[in-house]
Amino acid sequence: MTLYSEIIEQPARIRALLASQRKFVGEVASAIQKHEIQYVFLAARGTSDNAGRYANYLLGAMNGLLLALATPSLFTYYKRPPKLKNALVVGISQSGQSPDIVSVLEEGRRQNCLTLAITNEPKSPLASVSDFVFDIQAGAEKAVAATKTYTTELMAVAMLSAALSRNTKHWSELSQVSGWMKQTLKQSDYIREAVQRYRYIDQTVVLGRGFNYATAFEWALKLKELTYIVAEPYSSADFAHGPIAMMVKGYPVCAVAPKGKVFDSMLGMLKRLREDISAELVIISNDKKALSLAQVPLTIPADVPEWLSPLIGILPAQLFAYHLTKAKGYNTEQPRGIRKVTETK
Amino acid sequence: MTLYSEIIEQPARIRALLASQRKFVGEVASAIQKHEIQYVFLAARGTSDNAGRYANYLLGAMNGLLLALATPSLFTYYKRPPKLKNALVVGISQSGQSPDIVSVLEEGRRQNCLTLAITNEPKSPLASVSDFVFDIQAGAEKAVAATKTYTTELMAVAMLSAALSRNTKHWSELSQVSGWMKQTLKQSDYIREAVQRYRYIDQTVVLGRGFNYATAFEWALKLKELTYIVAEPYSSADFAHGPIAMMVKGYPVCAVAPKGKVFDSMLGMLKRLREDISAELVIISNDKKALSLAQVPLTIPADVPEWLSPLIGILPAQLFAYHLTKAKGYNTEQPRGIRKVTETK
Repeated sequence: MTLYSEIIEQPARIRALLASQRKFVGEVASAIQKHEIQYVFLAARGTSDNAGRYANYLLGAMNGLLLALATPSLFTYYKRPPKLKNALVVGISQSGQSPDIVSVLEEGRRQNCLTLAITNEPKSPLASVSDFVFDIQAGAEKAVAATKTYTTELMAVAMLSAALSRNTKHWSELSQVSGWMKQTLKQSDYIREAVQRYRYIDQTVVLGRGFNYATAFEWALKLKELTYIVAEPYSSADFAHGPIAMMVKGYPVCAVAPKGKVFDSMLGMLKRLREDISAELVIISNDKKALSLAQVPLTIPADVPEWLSPLIGILPAQLFAYHLTKAKGYNTEQPRGIRKVTETK
Repeated sequence: MTLYSEIIEQPARIRALLASQRKFVGEVASAIQKHEIQYVFLAARGTSDNAGRYANYLLGAMNGLLLALATPSLFTYYKRPPKLKNALVVGISQSGQSPDIVSVLEEGRRQNCLTLAITNEPKSPLASVSDFVFDIQAGAEKAVAATKTYTTELMAVAMLSAALSRNTKHWSELSQVSGWMKQTLKQSDYIREAVQRYRYIDQTVVLGRGFNYATAFEWALKLKELTYIVAEPYSSADFAHGPIAMMVKGYPVCAVAPKGKVFDSMLGMLKRLREDISAELVIISNDKKALSLAQVPLTIPADVPEWLSPLIGILPAQLFAYHLTKAKGYNTEQPRGIRKVTETK
């Protein structure tokens, strides 16, 4: 199974990436600091857009850098790109081929902005219009559902943040990611059994906040692509502003709630869902209070710091989606209706 | 029924707002131009966040202004607000009370940014920390599901855009919004009959793009709050990057596809859904080609310009959600599990 082997391969890819690209990302950080960048303007679609969501929180919280997510149709259909003075323009795309993402980088270049591509294809159209090309070196990804290109994109963002903050503690934490991933992947057999309970669900919501807002979106996307469940991602705050009305007893809720600054806020929502509504909970965490609320607890190592928890926390989510796809009798390698490269404008 | 009367009241509120706030919004536009604003930083939640999505496209396409949507948890939990040099900081909130939105505006003020509140409560905490307060004058909104505060927020954004562009054609188009709304609301009886077909749906996706990305989100939110259907909004481009895999014959899809720059892109997706997948389509449009693809066509006037189509296009969506709530036997005034003012941090 290609998808499964691509999931299992992630710790090795992450370890190799850290070794090979540390010097390069230092050069990118120096250029950013020299150009007096005021904000980041980022374009991406699908899984890569979720890596962009991680960048939004990480570059904000660690580096004080504001990030604006591009709306590509302003470039492609409305032909009215905004003024991008003092922006770092970033495109994330595993294939580097989506015309709308390329057009955002082209416009950045036309306005004399510094441009950065994060891609698995260093000879792609996206790379060709970028000043810097961060090659995520994930190797060919053959399964249609992206897994290893997602975590290597997250790693690229995390390395860029560490290079900008010049904090040696961050680099030593980055060197532990591969080991934490390996440990987490050991749950595969347990997850294969646990998902049987969800053979007949056809909808769920996925909650996450802060750094793991990205994880909620990516978990939901894997469920939609592979299991055809309607899985809608939310921050716990947005969820409280209306969608919580959908909840009834037994409604299945997935949540990513590792220790960290937003943990108490997530825990409050999870308690409300369990105690007031009797929702069914699948929870990824490294905190016992959160895990004890779950019918299906999915554990990540206790010492994972919050800022790197999205790299580890997505692994049980990938395994959950993979095993549930098999439990439902669907094809894990070629989901219906989608292609590997989607050329949207 | 309060919700129904608040829906019907919208044309009158919009007409009054245009008359009373035109001079004020000119002053805001002058201040923005004097401050050499480089981008807009906008904080909102729930329905108001959807008004923010409209601002993202409209201020970009009409005014060349880049907009970044704030991630309030960076301010409240991570205590690491980004640098906001040369930003116009905007908060949209009907109640003006959500602490996370207020904290973004406070930080904007601390960093000497120009600040603007768009709110129905000009004496609220949000208003008290803002340089300019755009009072949307919707009158007390008693139904929990927001309707008239959404369209008056959109109108505030549209008036700000027109004031910035100083284009008299835009002002004359704004003066027609109230009439277009009235005409559109005449479909209420037709929609009451048409929704019977959806008495037993429990999920749907809602598609929109460009200016009407906001409409897709707001239609989906009304369905979730009122009918408890799992309704997930997408741009047609993001939908093609994965979630389209969920589609099977007869799957109900709602779409907002008025004439304009992104129409051909939306029409292509709707044809694919109808012809390749035999999806069930509910389509809001003023184009015959799009309407002819729908099992349930919902019409807006032919001469509505694309930039104002979100103000008109949301009305059939509100009526659809209202009548479907009644068809399903739920309470239209007080949805379960949510309150009018949600005080998230």
